Amino acid sequence: MTMAKLILDISMSLDGFIAGPNRSLDRPLGEGGLERWARDVAGYREQHGNTGATVVGRRMFSGGDRAWEDDPNTDGWWGDDPPFHHPVFILTHHAREPVTKKGGTTLTFVTGGIESALEQARAAAGAKEVAVGGGANVARQYLRAGLVDELQLHVLPVLLGQGLRLFEDHVAQAVVVLQPIRMVESLTGVVHVRYRVTS
Amino acid sequence: MTMAKLILDISMSLDGFIAGPNRSLDRPLGEGGLERWARDVAGYREQHGNTGATVVGRRMFSGGDRAWEDDPNTDGWWGDDPPFHHPVFILTHHAREPVTKKGGTTLTFVTGGIESALEQARAAAGAKEVAVGGGANVARQYLRAGLVDELQLHVLPVLLGQGLRLFEDHVAQAVVVLQPIRMVESLTGVVHVRYRVTS
Repeated sequence: MTMAKLILDISMSLDGFIAGPNRSLDRPLGEGGLERWARDVAGYREQHGNTGATVVGRRMFSGGDRAWEDDPNTDGWWGDDPPFHHPVFILTHHAREPVTKKGGTTLTFVTGGIESALEQARAAAGAKEVAVGGGANVARQYLRAGLVDELQLHVLPVLLGQGLRLFEDHVAQAVVVLQPIRMVESLTGVVHVRYRVTS
Repeated sequence: MTMAKLILDISMSLDGFIAGPNRSLDRPLGEGGLERWARDVAGYREQHGNTGATVVGRRMFSGGDRAWEDDPNTDGWWGDDPPFHHPVFILTHHAREPVTKKGGTTLTFVTGGIESALEQARAAAGAKEVAVGGGANVARQYLRAGLVDELQLHVLPVLLGQGLRLFEDHVAQAVVVLQPIRMVESLTGVVHVRYRVTS
């Protein structure tokens, strides 16, 4: 069986930020209003995506360190019916029993690192793809490790000026040439670009 | 007469770099191979551009500090027939007489700052547009001053990992919402995106 591809699928502002400053449990994308394009991005994923499992970081799940530390069993900011509808693997240092949510979303907590999470996600994804959805820290770890097969970026029509960058210095540890696969501009001004990582 | 629009027209890697590390007179875009898409970008500008005058920084002209300091009268790395074919205004602290090159390119050296250069370029552009072509320092100054009317970015299909960023922290001093105007994907994988700066 062919191994499921790993897609880094994430939104960023035109100036490269995936979240604004002052993130919190209530405002996981921080200040700057990036959430205004969330529906567009979700719609694009529904129409074009082929995701069978998603890997995310602990902060992406919990909405920030504080909530997690206050309550390691928090369900995060996704609520009872998370928008995935497939298995989600959450990278964490805190072991925890799996949780089954409504709508086909299961949450599995992985303490064995990014390769272990990827292996489990691939097993769950079957013939579909595995997505890395962020946050920045987890996305960068997969990029640095050379494990990302394709980039699916949703470039939002805004300059934030500050926040959390996806591509910090040396996220690509050598020059990485990309092979464009698909470009779609949406009515709301989001440019959805997909590339194959070729070197 | 309507004032000529100011377009920030520049190439950057998908991870936001307009030049790689170790720039030199011989290699103004540094390491990483960004120059491989220069012909595509030049062709796009020829086909879609409406530029009547260009403003550039001293380093963009001279290919680096050293050449300029060694010889303040250097003609830079453009040679006898620069690729502009219209008036070019070079921001510098070193006053110098104008130079007329082949093919309709004139070089005017401006010591009065970015607003003075813009004013002179607008007068020269007539009914056409004024482009800011870089380098990063000059581009950022115009962005910070809120003088840029439109962004024309040529997103190159490569991750450099290091180099000179166009959008450093706080280049946008507040959140700037963009209005997409045009997106074109070229055969070489360059995504040409144009936005109006709306706030």
